[in-house]
Amino acid sequence: MPKIGDQYLQVDPWKIIEQGFHADRSRVSESLFSLANEHMGIRGCFEEGFSGDSLIGCYLNGIYEEHTLSEPTAYKGISNRIGFMVNTANWLYTRIRLGDEVLDLHSSRFRDFRRELDFRTGELRREFVWIGASGREVKIEFSRFLSMPAPELGFQRLALTPLNFSGPVSLTFGIDFSIPHETYRRNFWECPRTFAQDQVWGILGISRNIRHKVFAGSSMLSEIPADKASLAGEKLAGCRFEISLAQGRRTELDRVTALFTTRDPQCGAEETWTRGMASLEQARAMRYADALRVNTEYWMDFWAGADITVEGDPETQQGIRYCIFQLQQTYRGAVEGANIGAKGLTGEAYNGNTFWDTETYCLPYFLFSNPQAAKALIEYRYKTLPQALERAASLDCQGACFPVATIDGTESCTLWQHASLQIQPTTGVAYAIWHYVKTTRDTEFLPAKGAELLVHICRFLASRGQWSPRSNKFGYYAVMGPDEFHMMVNNNCYTNYLAKRTFLYTLEVLAQMAPGRKAELVSRLAWTEDELAAWRKMADGMILPYNEELGVYEQHEGYLDLPHIDVDQIPVADFPLYHHWSYDRIFRTDMIKQPDVLMFLFLYNQSFSRAEKLRNYAYYEPRCIHESSLSPSLHSIFAAELDHPQEAFALFKFAARIDLDNYNRNTAEGIHLTSIAAAWMSVVYGYGGLRSDGEHLVFHPTIPPHWESFRFQITYRASTLRVEITQKEARLQLIQGTPVTALIGGCLREITRDGLTLPI
Amino acid sequence: MPKIGDQYLQVDPWKIIEQGFHADRSRVSESLFSLANEHMGIRGCFEEGFSGDSLIGCYLNGIYEEHTLSEPTAYKGISNRIGFMVNTANWLYTRIRLGDEVLDLHSSRFRDFRRELDFRTGELRREFVWIGASGREVKIEFSRFLSMPAPELGFQRLALTPLNFSGPVSLTFGIDFSIPHETYRRNFWECPRTFAQDQVWGILGISRNIRHKVFAGSSMLSEIPADKASLAGEKLAGCRFEISLAQGRRTELDRVTALFTTRDPQCGAEETWTRGMASLEQARAMRYADALRVNTEYWMDFWAGADITVEGDPETQQGIRYCIFQLQQTYRGAVEGANIGAKGLTGEAYNGNTFWDTETYCLPYFLFSNPQAAKALIEYRYKTLPQALERAASLDCQGACFPVATIDGTESCTLWQHASLQIQPTTGVAYAIWHYVKTTRDTEFLPAKGAELLVHICRFLASRGQWSPRSNKFGYYAVMGPDEFHMMVNNNCYTNYLAKRTFLYTLEVLAQMAPGRKAELVSRLAWTEDELAAWRKMADGMILPYNEELGVYEQHEGYLDLPHIDVDQIPVADFPLYHHWSYDRIFRTDMIKQPDVLMFLFLYNQSFSRAEKLRNYAYYEPRCIHESSLSPSLHSIFAAELDHPQEAFALFKFAARIDLDNYNRNTAEGIHLTSIAAAWMSVVYGYGGLRSDGEHLVFHPTIPPHWESFRFQITYRASTLRVEITQKEARLQLIQGTPVTALIGGCLREITRDGLTLPI
Repeated sequence: MPKIGDQYLQVDPWKIIEQGFHADRSRVSESLFSLANEHMGIRGCFEEGFSGDSLIGCYLNGIYEEHTLSEPTAYKGISNRIGFMVNTANWLYTRIRLGDEVLDLHSSRFRDFRRELDFRTGELRREFVWIGASGREVKIEFSRFLSMPAPELGFQRLALTPLNFSGPVSLTFGIDFSIPHETYRRNFWECPRTFAQDQVWGILGISRNIRHKVFAGSSMLSEIPADKASLAGEKLAGCRFEISLAQGRRTELDRVTALFTTRDPQCGAEETWTRGMASLEQARAMRYADALRVNTEYWMDFWAGADITVEGDPETQQGIRYCIFQLQQTYRGAVEGANIGAKGLTGEAYNGNTFWDTETYCLPYFLFSNPQAAKALIEYRYKTLPQALERAASLDCQGACFPVATIDGTESCTLWQHASLQIQPTTGVAYAIWHYVKTTRDTEFLPAKGAELLVHICRFLASRGQWSPRSNKFGYYAVMGPDEFHMMVNNNCYTNYLAKRTFLYTLEVLAQMAPGRKAELVSRLAWTEDELAAWRKMADGMILPYNEELGVYEQHEGYLDLPHIDVDQIPVADFPLYHHWSYDRIFRTDMIKQPDVLMFLFLYNQSFSRAEKLRNYAYYEPRCIHESSLSPSLHSIFAAELDHPQEAFALFKFAARIDLDNYNRNTAEGIHLTSIAAAWMSVVYGYGGLRSDGEHLVFHPTIPPHWESFRFQITYRASTLRVEITQKEARLQLIQGTPVTALIGGCLREITRDGLTLPI
Repeated sequence: MPKIGDQYLQVDPWKIIEQGFHADRSRVSESLFSLANEHMGIRGCFEEGFSGDSLIGCYLNGIYEEHTLSEPTAYKGISNRIGFMVNTANWLYTRIRLGDEVLDLHSSRFRDFRRELDFRTGELRREFVWIGASGREVKIEFSRFLSMPAPELGFQRLALTPLNFSGPVSLTFGIDFSIPHETYRRNFWECPRTFAQDQVWGILGISRNIRHKVFAGSSMLSEIPADKASLAGEKLAGCRFEISLAQGRRTELDRVTALFTTRDPQCGAEETWTRGMASLEQARAMRYADALRVNTEYWMDFWAGADITVEGDPETQQGIRYCIFQLQQTYRGAVEGANIGAKGLTGEAYNGNTFWDTETYCLPYFLFSNPQAAKALIEYRYKTLPQALERAASLDCQGACFPVATIDGTESCTLWQHASLQIQPTTGVAYAIWHYVKTTRDTEFLPAKGAELLVHICRFLASRGQWSPRSNKFGYYAVMGPDEFHMMVNNNCYTNYLAKRTFLYTLEVLAQMAPGRKAELVSRLAWTEDELAAWRKMADGMILPYNEELGVYEQHEGYLDLPHIDVDQIPVADFPLYHHWSYDRIFRTDMIKQPDVLMFLFLYNQSFSRAEKLRNYAYYEPRCIHESSLSPSLHSIFAAELDHPQEAFALFKFAARIDLDNYNRNTAEGIHLTSIAAAWMSVVYGYGGLRSDGEHLVFHPTIPPHWESFRFQITYRASTLRVEITQKEARLQLIQGTPVTALIGGCLREITRDGLTLPI
């Protein structure tokens, strides 16, 4: 792993801190200091404007626009339309003028810059002393937070303290709907209604194509004693205040902003305006400090259950808490239609789209902390079933094909080599259903929605796969497995294995279904016994390339014959390879981008022996360059399981601090949300040794040699378990609910309130 | 082969004739009635304008523009720029007005429409009677031809005969530089200079990006007694004539047009104008009938050598003569920088680009009729060597990589799966050198240019190929062979075999080179003995997938395991598959688009036994759907060699009349020029049984059962041979030059002026 971290933030157990402004990393910091509350997110960009490198990004989960390729591909089944999370309004818009000077950290003089984000409060604070041209110095303090209990609300505070003068300052607060969506270099909003009166203002935005309606309105939280001038431009509303500052006196100005949307493009502008204004009206009675207190309570309550503590490794402690904080900010299952974009709500990269990462990398975190949120993620797929049925048809297949990348359920990936060849988003949905039902014992979901999804998925798998004439076995041709460095391959082992398990699980689900519901479903989906028999035949006849001599699964037919490359010999300057290697060159060796064989060995961990895992890990790990941010954590989990502690920690560290230390050199585009979820897995599945793919939970705790201890909690069915691991022993204890039986050291043992203590 | 012809033209041995206007086939006819003379080409569109479906297309060989994709692909080594043969000026622009009515066959009434193109004169004639609104009838006759001896000249005649009235008619003749390039929906010309005076007019066009300069000027060929008004618009120059017509009297108006360009974008506008005007000035002294007579002499002289006569099959006779006529129109090696676009000069499809078809399908026709033209085709590649070196570098390779599609030598194919994976354009150049030198015994070409090309090609092949670790053999990974229905395959047999032969041939050429020239080349290209040894090792270690059990070459590793599809069961409505099948579905079976294994068995025919060819043909032919227009002729040649006369003729008929009967339903876009060249091969290589890949020529004549006889001539080194084959016997005779030794029936025999007679 030739990747090197770039650590510039201070280490703190509960915060990220930037001491002194790092102008060359301004976009990286903007990403890292992003705030979100599932409903909305805003990058850590400067309220007062910044003429340096910056992306003012304010996104609403599920609010999207579309871009149609200007030179579309004519081949059938190729998407030429991208749905993307669209940049909305800069509701923190602020301008500060002192005499002739407008504050801009790109050109103004300043000192004592400090920015910090506290995971216990969700508050982002920034302070510095602005040194005016005439030597006048003002201490400026900005703070902001997004309300977790009232997600449509965002709070902002500006405090000014003139250090060596008294005099007037001109302040403008506003909402700016004119910011461009950077990726497509245009603004996507029409603003038919704007309002600004005294200390309250609002704008209605209607997105150009999809016709999403978003209300954004602000109110100052106290009467400002100043000359005021309302501003109401085409896409800007706000107010200018002329304020007198007294030397040494701190003046605070607070505002609350409501960003409201129903997320339903059919919803009328009038309704959106009225409901948005009502929300703002309610919020006007709040105070910044009170709201922050409520927010802090929310977060402290959250941490009480979700925290992972690590003693003896402050960097990891900070990294893993940052991951959990950002994950919780992005998604918690409260907003209908929300999902987890590859960059969360922190940037435009990957178009804010959701990938199969949701089911395979993010789901476990929610399964073991917030099962309702996990369920909502699967229900998102159920809601988009019509689009998946349509997609399968456009690929000349039956059933439901789930998109590689999407925001509204339609395929948004315009690269056919991914969108047409990757089957793992579809099998991923089936896996998620299996994992969810197994973990939660939810008896309602399968008859209500799960079974229907599974039948449609099997129909897709049955029609997309083919029988080989020579072997008379079943498989998938012209696919791209999880490893995106090999495409148009035949019988990718992951693809085939997942399909096999999906067929078998579906047959099991249908066999166990209550007759009434089953009859209803049969009458609607019209399957026959012949169809089910065909699925069983496909499952039984599934090709799983395996090399007897090496004792490893062959990633796909022919993989073992590929030219070999020693990935450690690739110069660091060549990364990312997509930028430095010709496209086809990437596909010509046995180098893999991310786990593929190891991925299904992880997902169905207990179906494979330790010896098998050892052999496959030994073969594939050295061939992986981890060009996917999802890769290190999964390898770390294997390394921990297979007793490679040094390797496990090296990979884990990368995963836990991927963004804080900008390992992939692209945090500027947004943080790696789904990789962050995988970092959580690295602790709980990796060092905790949790496995959740069998009849019972499994624990096989280990600990990195330099940690003193670490601790985490999980929710399992109605119980809460605490796991605490030191260098000497692991302690598993029931905190709440009924005792849990788990497989520990090969034996079934009961975890009760008394706890279990195991030697390490 | 589920393709069905759509025959609507009359059968004639020397003409194509459309009796009665087929409005629904207007674009098909425009393509079929195209004229060209290598320098320029013009579709058979209506001079007088036509508001129905029409593409006014006037192209100059080698005059191109560029289009850059508006949403370029970011991956390295992918071309985002298309060079394309650009539509130029409509120099036949004519308008006919009678009272208030303007002639337009889309809306006007008319009768007795007839259009014919005569291969003996190169003249296109069209006549009909226009029935005016008031019942006035005028017989209209248009004719045109492009001068073969003076390629910059085009001649036009309009004759009018009022049948039932006398009166005035308004005629406009002009040159229109405003026509759009249809593919990119815009006009690419700036016209800084326009001139119109009395009966002479001219325009200078400068292409927008490349800055090609084209002069177009016309002159009427006799003084027209009429009121005249010169026209000089922004992009239009011409003259309007008010003419009196007398009932029953035929009035002829002739004009000559010069289209001049140096093809050098560096050439100044002034020089182009001056030289173009001089050319026009010279032409003004000509007369239509005289010029046509000279043209007819050219064509009759050409036919004396190039004709293929077929007795007993008028449709084939017409088809094959049409092919030869169009081939000669498109390219004859006289214009520097010219090449053979997939659609010749007859349409915009494939952007007027040149493909590997030139070397593999077109070259043989020129080798055996016009070796200088053949040589010029290879020299075109030599001239574009700098671009090929650059292209290889952009693919992270060494040496020279020749483009999949090009007009100026740079890669114009923006689909990476073709441009980055297809190596056959590069090996095709090496094959062409080998074939040319073998056939002509040209001793100058190799030391002057050929060896240099070969060294650069080998360097590309050596750097693009890789060693497989398990077999310790050499091959090509992630390629697309000639069969475009399988991509990203490993060790495509064609690719590997051609690379092997290219290495070996290059080593042989270098070994045999005269020391002086070799030393000069070594000093410039700096190869070492180690490098040559590495090439030999690659050649010797080349992987050639072969299945012992079936006794066939495996098209690529894993091909034989692909799911099988019975191509005869694919509904006709599914063709073309690219339009009706999802893109990835095309790649998932053993169905092939065009010959791949059979292709190298054809190119190196004598290196393989009859038994091998029988087995491979029997295996691959039934799997081929001939979705490439190049496919049927090559299969026809094999079918003839392998004694499948019915199959041979079915495939040949398709090839010989692919455009006349619009078998592929896309002749509207232009005729299939390179497929037309392959049709010539189907006669000479197919039925004539010529083979030119060994030490000596081979003849193995056969004849379709329903033909009485057929005859063709070839030029071989300095000799001309005539081959005449009847149902009873074949007669091979030397017409000119020294006797030729050929392998006939397994024995070397001498073909002299006395001739050889062989039983069939």
